[in-house]
Amino acid sequence: MSDNSLGRSLVMVSFGESHGNAVGVLIEGIPAGTEIDEKRINEWLARRKPSTSLASTKRKEDDIVEILSGVYRGKATGAPFVAIVRNKGYVDDFYSFAEEGWVRPGHADYPAYVKYKGFNDPRGGGRFSARITVGFVIAGAIAEEILKPLRIEVVGYTKSIGPIECPDLDIENARKRYEFETRCPSAEHDALMQEEILKAKREGDSLGGTIRIITGKLPVGLGQPVFSSLDSELAKAYFSIPAVKGVEIGAGFRASKLRGSQNNDIYVLRNNEITTLTNNAGGILGGMTNGQPLIATIAFKPVSSIYKPQRTVNIKKMEEGILQLKGMHDACVVPRAVPIAEALTYFVLADMALRGGFISER
Amino acid sequence: MSDNSLGRSLVMVSFGESHGNAVGVLIEGIPAGTEIDEKRINEWLARRKPSTSLASTKRKEDDIVEILSGVYRGKATGAPFVAIVRNKGYVDDFYSFAEEGWVRPGHADYPAYVKYKGFNDPRGGGRFSARITVGFVIAGAIAEEILKPLRIEVVGYTKSIGPIECPDLDIENARKRYEFETRCPSAEHDALMQEEILKAKREGDSLGGTIRIITGKLPVGLGQPVFSSLDSELAKAYFSIPAVKGVEIGAGFRASKLRGSQNNDIYVLRNNEITTLTNNAGGILGGMTNGQPLIATIAFKPVSSIYKPQRTVNIKKMEEGILQLKGMHDACVVPRAVPIAEALTYFVLADMALRGGFISER
Amino acid sequence: MSDNSLGRSLVMVSFGESHGNAVGVLIEGIPAGTEIDEKRINEWLARRKPSTSLASTKRKEDDIVEILSGVYRGKATGAPFVAIVRNKGYVDDFYSFAEEGWVRPGHADYPAYVKYKGFNDPRGGGRFSARITVGFVIAGAIAEEILKPLRIEVVGYTKSIGPIECPDLDIENARKRYEFETRCPSAEHDALMQEEILKAKREGDSLGGTIRIITGKLPVGLGQPVFSSLDSELAKAYFSIPAVKGVEIGAGFRASKLRGSQNNDIYVLRNNEITTLTNNAGGILGGMTNGQPLIATIAFKPVSSIYKPQRTVNIKKMEEGILQLKGMHDACVVPRAVPIAEALTYFVLADMALRGGFISER
Amino acid sequence: MSDNSLGRSLVMVSFGESHGNAVGVLIEGIPAGTEIDEKRINEWLARRKPSTSLASTKRKEDDIVEILSGVYRGKATGAPFVAIVRNKGYVDDFYSFAEEGWVRPGHADYPAYVKYKGFNDPRGGGRFSARITVGFVIAGAIAEEILKPLRIEVVGYTKSIGPIECPDLDIENARKRYEFETRCPSAEHDALMQEEILKAKREGDSLGGTIRIITGKLPVGLGQPVFSSLDSELAKAYFSIPAVKGVEIGAGFRASKLRGSQNNDIYVLRNNEITTLTNNAGGILGGMTNGQPLIATIAFKPVSSIYKPQRTVNIKKMEEGILQLKGMHDACVVPRAVPIAEALTYFVLADMALRGGFISER
Repeated sequence: MSDNSLGRSLVMVSFGESHGNAVGVLIEGIPAGTEIDEKRINEWLARRKPSTSLASTKRKEDDIVEILSGVYRGKATGAPFVAIVRNKGYVDDFYSFAEEGWVRPGHADYPAYVKYKGFNDPRGGGRFSARITVGFVIAGAIAEEILKPLRIEVVGYTKSIGPIECPDLDIENARKRYEFETRCPSAEHDALMQEEILKAKREGDSLGGTIRIITGKLPVGLGQPVFSSLDSELAKAYFSIPAVKGVEIGAGFRASKLRGSQNNDIYVLRNNEITTLTNNAGGILGGMTNGQPLIATIAFKPVSSIYKPQRTVNIKKMEEGILQLKGMHDACVVPRAVPIAEALTYFVLADMALRGGFISER
Repeated sequence: MSDNSLGRSLVMVSFGESHGNAVGVLIEGIPAGTEIDEKRINEWLARRKPSTSLASTKRKEDDIVEILSGVYRGKATGAPFVAIVRNKGYVDDFYSFAEEGWVRPGHADYPAYVKYKGFNDPRGGGRFSARITVGFVIAGAIAEEILKPLRIEVVGYTKSIGPIECPDLDIENARKRYEFETRCPSAEHDALMQEEILKAKREGDSLGGTIRIITGKLPVGLGQPVFSSLDSELAKAYFSIPAVKGVEIGAGFRASKLRGSQNNDIYVLRNNEITTLTNNAGGILGGMTNGQPLIATIAFKPVSSIYKPQRTVNIKKMEEGILQLKGMHDACVVPRAVPIAEALTYFVLADMALRGGFISER
Repeated sequence: MSDNSLGRSLVMVSFGESHGNAVGVLIEGIPAGTEIDEKRINEWLARRKPSTSLASTKRKEDDIVEILSGVYRGKATGAPFVAIVRNKGYVDDFYSFAEEGWVRPGHADYPAYVKYKGFNDPRGGGRFSARITVGFVIAGAIAEEILKPLRIEVVGYTKSIGPIECPDLDIENARKRYEFETRCPSAEHDALMQEEILKAKREGDSLGGTIRIITGKLPVGLGQPVFSSLDSELAKAYFSIPAVKGVEIGAGFRASKLRGSQNNDIYVLRNNEITTLTNNAGGILGGMTNGQPLIATIAFKPVSSIYKPQRTVNIKKMEEGILQLKGMHDACVVPRAVPIAEALTYFVLADMALRGGFISER
Repeated sequence: MSDNSLGRSLVMVSFGESHGNAVGVLIEGIPAGTEIDEKRINEWLARRKPSTSLASTKRKEDDIVEILSGVYRGKATGAPFVAIVRNKGYVDDFYSFAEEGWVRPGHADYPAYVKYKGFNDPRGGGRFSARITVGFVIAGAIAEEILKPLRIEVVGYTKSIGPIECPDLDIENARKRYEFETRCPSAEHDALMQEEILKAKREGDSLGGTIRIITGKLPVGLGQPVFSSLDSELAKAYFSIPAVKGVEIGAGFRASKLRGSQNNDIYVLRNNEITTLTNNAGGILGGMTNGQPLIATIAFKPVSSIYKPQRTVNIKKMEEGILQLKGMHDACVVPRAVPIAEALTYFVLADMALRGGFISER
């Protein structure tokens, strides 16, 4: 309802900067009595931690949630929930280039400086850091709990990293994603992806990739029509993750090449229940779930902060130059983005479940 | 701010059903004094009319806007603007299958029936008809006017239809899109696409395609961070257009295959202005415009209503059967969606310009 | 959610100007299947018509609703409902003073001119006319229907006009309010009030008054805490009615003179149900209903448009002068505001019932 | 935009419970570059502290703000601002009656228990404690700073406590309110009010009262029409303060007794500026400021938590009984509510200034 909020019946407002006191989230609309388990939230947070393998940033983020309001004796009270994670383990010195006026190619540095007249917090990217997704993940943990009565499970996995692409997996095979460094639950592709990341890392470069989101069968009718269609809200949420440049539902861009007779998912009856023979729709028709699994694919550009020297400009001095970054930057954020994409999917589904009366606030 | 609304400082609420009394739009936040030209709105509406060539639906939609409020002597008053277009030229008889309980594969019929407990208006798809985009187009015409002081131009064109794909065009070459039946401003590809549509039409089938949106240079800093990033809001808007299954900004999915050193758009100075050597970002960094042209690509699935007989189920009788549609269905909606996509782009940019104070309400 | 909207789960957006094409309302959130009876809406509209006695304006407002969307076969479809009433029976000539730049003392003319830079529609007060409450009344008729499962009845009556004040009435005695010209359901006070209005009218002057709203017993827990408390939302709604200058809940200002031991409503058990011995709270504690009847009182200033010549200024010429109004102005709007206040009360209660899950959207 | 939020361009979301970890506020829409002075916020917070005289609660609230986000080097960054105050100095033991099921007459205990199915935090009233206004006061301090360019000053003072009423004061005389224990800036009435409070306190009882809000001259046109009229938004805000039962703008209920010719504020020219001879409108016409000082009056009921034994019911056992409260309760909250009412007035005015473009976000 505001610039930094997502959702309508379940609303989260994201706040915090990378090197400020804390990052966090405020959530309204959690039904009173929902179990709020700090341990479970911390498990979610652990999933977005940098990999212990060589592939990732050296910044240590031992993120432990602190709940400030909205919980009493382990249950949601119905009042606004606020939770934070304190920022630590960062080094401001790495960001002297920003103070000097150098803007990173491909990063928000330049538009943020103009938009906020230089008042934005430049340290660690400030508000434009992937660190703010800590709040998204906390919200996802809550949303997962809210959705329990509907038995909704969301699974995301790394579908590709750079040129390495894993085949489509069903939810059973994808579920073990967190046992793999790259969150690609195919041992073979996980190994290839790790290799690719390490190679890019050695070269001071970075990689993009894609994440696939799948769910089990969903109730029919989640999603409001037109501007609050389920696909609209999911896309809005996914594009809020830093580095996302594309979103597909179901067959996505591939569907644009198909004939209607090929793309339409034929309805059939199985055990007196309506189901479809295919799922090109990715579970969404007219902005609403049709009962089939939700399928979404999210494209991430390669991380813009690379160690290779890059040409750029200094916006304070208005001169060109070469920027050589220091600091702690992931060579590939895709594996860390898996729990973030899952969290946002849970959140949007929970909001829709509440909007549509699938879960009662009473 | 509601399920059927888009925008925050400039807000549109879409209303109407395909075969109801009218379709229309309510808009709040138009700065007082903005010129409102009915003739211009009707020109916009004419662009989404069915093609006079054989490629399109036979439904005659001679859409003329009627303004109900918010305008005095040709200028916006600052009060809510409401405009409608009366529905006519349709035949309800074609929709007896819906009353009987047959659901079209690939269409919203089934989830809508469940969600609204059978109370939704099924005639012509009701609320789930592309006809509701009449309101989007009216809003686009207003938004274009609001943006005049910022000299913002939005151009969309048909990038592909089925297997036929037109190369990337710059805004100068794309501008003449409305001189072509398919809205693909390349005579060669326009001809191939027309052929492809006619072929699908003859076979009782349908085609999807993609639309490319491009703009001229934009002011820096349009777009709010995180959940109201410009890409989030554009994606939300685009996914509200019926049949959209994918959205890309800039290099989109292609960016996921690139290295950071390839994808980052290098900043340079030209005439003491900051610009970039490439535009893989599609003009958006950190959710804000970086001054370069906006580039977006939108994927449309093929129309689900086809004349070929299809297997499906009857949700009232819970039995399987074959559905043979009558009525007036486009074989390909992509050409008609070009002004719709343009309109939503203008609208989102105008909302962002107002949110960010680029245009004053005073 | 926008400047011209009220409510969150049930949302109305008011639109229209006094002498424009139409006044109306857009409503989102009506549960699919809610009965929408045009006849019933027209009955509601008839209640806000000018009195046929001498007391009221000569403008003939034969208001008949036209529904544009959201209804199919007499039931709400779940899609946005839009209804309008065409404006007629007015004479623009009476408003030449406004075009010339004279501003009525006590009227919105002056701030509206400044705020909208002269682009607001001045005819008949434009957006600042009581005529826009036509939309409120339509919304009230719908809200009454939505609340049917909760058996909620709202009754308003004229509590005072100028110096004439009617004693407190219970809902049984107040229910016959529409049988009285002044909407004061005490024959004695109705007569005195009529006399008072006619006297003011003869003198080219106007009168204010108060309206009391009462309900039967309500479910416990309607109303959200803090900024969406039931009293907050009611006050917001009531202050949107032109000429309102004060709102009280329960004992209101009188409560400020009482001791806690006098003002606290003592809880007792009656037939194993919790009730209170008094109702100083007016049925609201902590922003939520406590099960007792809602009681609210609304103060209206006298109509600002009077026939007596008044000193004022011309904002175009920046000079002082004497303004002598022509046209059709009520000497007292309080009787006509009774259905308006009732309508807004129904609306706020219906919104709260939906927000709190008292009525399911499913 | 949500149940716990106030404002649209400047949005605050209130959070926290009386005996939880913290109370606080999230604010969106603070223009980047706005000075954020912690010392100033703490000064504001000090004004709502309990009086050191005998008149007030014994709970020690040494409230020091902690800013979590949105500020860099003493200036707002444009990102969401979150600030908290830790809760301390309370004793949970005093609230065993709540756990047992006894509900205080006149308090939110009963409806809150029903609405939240017993999951609400009952300690200290939880979410329904006046302690949550800590966040309102922080927001007021920020809003005051935002309004600096418009030179807007808001002054509140205690107008009455129980039967003691202070005459109307102009802003010059009211400004020294914080030098008086009761916030009534008339030494004579301050003394009488203190006496009255001490008397009630000795008797285990409590007192209500009224607060008057006045401002200096305001810009013309602050406030949006209809549901976001300035009076609507102020009333909504004021009714969110615990214990408020009435709100008047300008002459308020007194206006309902006047003739139009008496109540209308005559426009005159003074030094070529438009002003009025009287201010019955309280500075608001048609929901917008007319340039005159804003005048509002707010009625507070007596505190419901009194030490006198009271009859009530136990909602867990469904039986009647006598409740004797312990703990720390103010005998009169009116003096402490003065900065709260001022803060909300600043906040609503700042929101309106931003909504209307009086202050640019750029």
